[in-house]
Amino acid sequence: MTPEELDAILPDFPKSMGVTLTHGSPECIVGTLTVQPHHANRNGVMHGGAIMAFADALGGSAAAVNLEDGQTTTTLESKTNFIRPIAIGETATARCEALHRGRRTTIWQTTVLREDGKPAAIVIQTQMTLSAAG
Amino acid sequence: MTPEELDAILPDFPKSMGVTLTHGSPECIVGTLTVQPHHANRNGVMHGGAIMAFADALGGSAAAVNLEDGQTTTTLESKTNFIRPIAIGETATARCEALHRGRRTTIWQTTVLREDGKPAAIVIQTQMTLSAAG
Amino acid sequence: MTPEELDAILPDFPKSMGVTLTHGSPECIVGTLTVQPHHANRNGVMHGGAIMAFADALGGSAAAVNLEDGQTTTTLESKTNFIRPIAIGETATARCEALHRGRRTTIWQTTVLREDGKPAAIVIQTQMTLSAAG
Amino acid sequence: MTPEELDAILPDFPKSMGVTLTHGSPECIVGTLTVQPHHANRNGVMHGGAIMAFADALGGSAAAVNLEDGQTTTTLESKTNFIRPIAIGETATARCEALHRGRRTTIWQTTVLREDGKPAAIVIQTQMTLSAAG
Repeated sequence: MTPEELDAILPDFPKSMGVTLTHGSPECIVGTLTVQPHHANRNGVMHGGAIMAFADALGGSAAAVNLEDGQTTTTLESKTNFIRPIAIGETATARCEALHRGRRTTIWQTTVLREDGKPAAIVIQTQMTLSAAG
Repeated sequence: MTPEELDAILPDFPKSMGVTLTHGSPECIVGTLTVQPHHANRNGVMHGGAIMAFADALGGSAAAVNLEDGQTTTTLESKTNFIRPIAIGETATARCEALHRGRRTTIWQTTVLREDGKPAAIVIQTQMTLSAAG
Repeated sequence: MTPEELDAILPDFPKSMGVTLTHGSPECIVGTLTVQPHHANRNGVMHGGAIMAFADALGGSAAAVNLEDGQTTTTLESKTNFIRPIAIGETATARCEALHRGRRTTIWQTTVLREDGKPAAIVIQTQMTLSAAG
Repeated sequence: MTPEELDAILPDFPKSMGVTLTHGSPECIVGTLTVQPHHANRNGVMHGGAIMAFADALGGSAAAVNLEDGQTTTTLESKTNFIRPIAIGETATARCEALHRGRRTTIWQTTVLREDGKPAAIVIQTQMTLSAAG
């Protein structure tokens, strides 16, 4: 996908956070986010909610890339395991890969990496595909 | 807790999103968020990532309220089930209640409610309590 | 539901474990399991896998009670938080209640209680309803 | 690890189900289970609870392999995504690999594979390490 296509599928909320998509295919989406001071939690590192929102932006985008005409997608559930903190000022990378792409549901695993390449969080989420006909 | 105390425990990221805490006790935290256009997903409703970040702000705050001097808390994991969309412009309410408050871990269930009072999402997360001594 | 109806909806695996359903309605299913020595983990208490299997038996049965003719149900995902151990010899009770009963999915929360009434585990799972037509 | 060592770490519950561990190292545990008729759910395939119990046996064993003298481990949480059914009579394989091995917690991802090698379920769980001193 071109940078313009990637920009077009990213929703307003991750854009307002500063997320950029850098690679997209039906099997894998990659994006980056430079962590700003307003992304902080009370320990002075990236807020868990910001980490989940970053990862969710990729999972939703990955599901969207797989839609056919007239279909939409909705997130059924999302589970995050937090492993390491991400410092303010770092550029974090998230890589979302398909665990399953079925007719009714798709399952995505997104790994959020710190600037040193170590995993900060792992997110698995289920997206349900909805057709216009219901 | 007073409005000043509630404001003091809320981290920068949820503040930047517009979250306000309205009630706080060791067993329960309540907060609100008026959904802005920049909180939108590609379907034009509140982004799942924003819903998770909103709920996580309450879970983390609830864990923080239960800390003793010298302790900190870190989120181990968070799981969200999405039930209904929240429209832009609505004021959503999140209510976080303790499922378990143990010595090493606390478990919190946060229900995000739409303006019509119907549940939009249910989040359960585990916080681990860390002492300064490690 | 009568004891015979409850017995008829319980699958072979939970039956082989010793699960009995004691109450059933479209909104709530209750069951019990007396913990046997062969249900033990390496710490000598009820195995987490046995706790999850017990709870899953109720979630699946609850979803089944809500099916219309020609529909089946499949579990999409299940998340368990473990709170307290259950000793061998205790009779544990699981109570499964609907968090959401939609047209395409149902969401169930099952609390597994020890004999002293304290929660041992909390399970939330999503079931997808499938029609014969696909 | 030798077959005798692998047999010694497997608890009673998975043994009673028919689970056998076939490979063990600090980073990875592999096991198999031939699906018996009493493992069935109401759709006539392997019960989700049996799949979770199978996977949990490996996650717990993997955590146990990493303990030092005087330590024990307890499962904090477990999340399963179900992808495909497993037929009665098949020999399923589960492969558990470390996502994180920290001082306080370990995180394990177990993939349950059908006889045709396709993934049937993916389980991520968090284990907390406890020392005798508390």
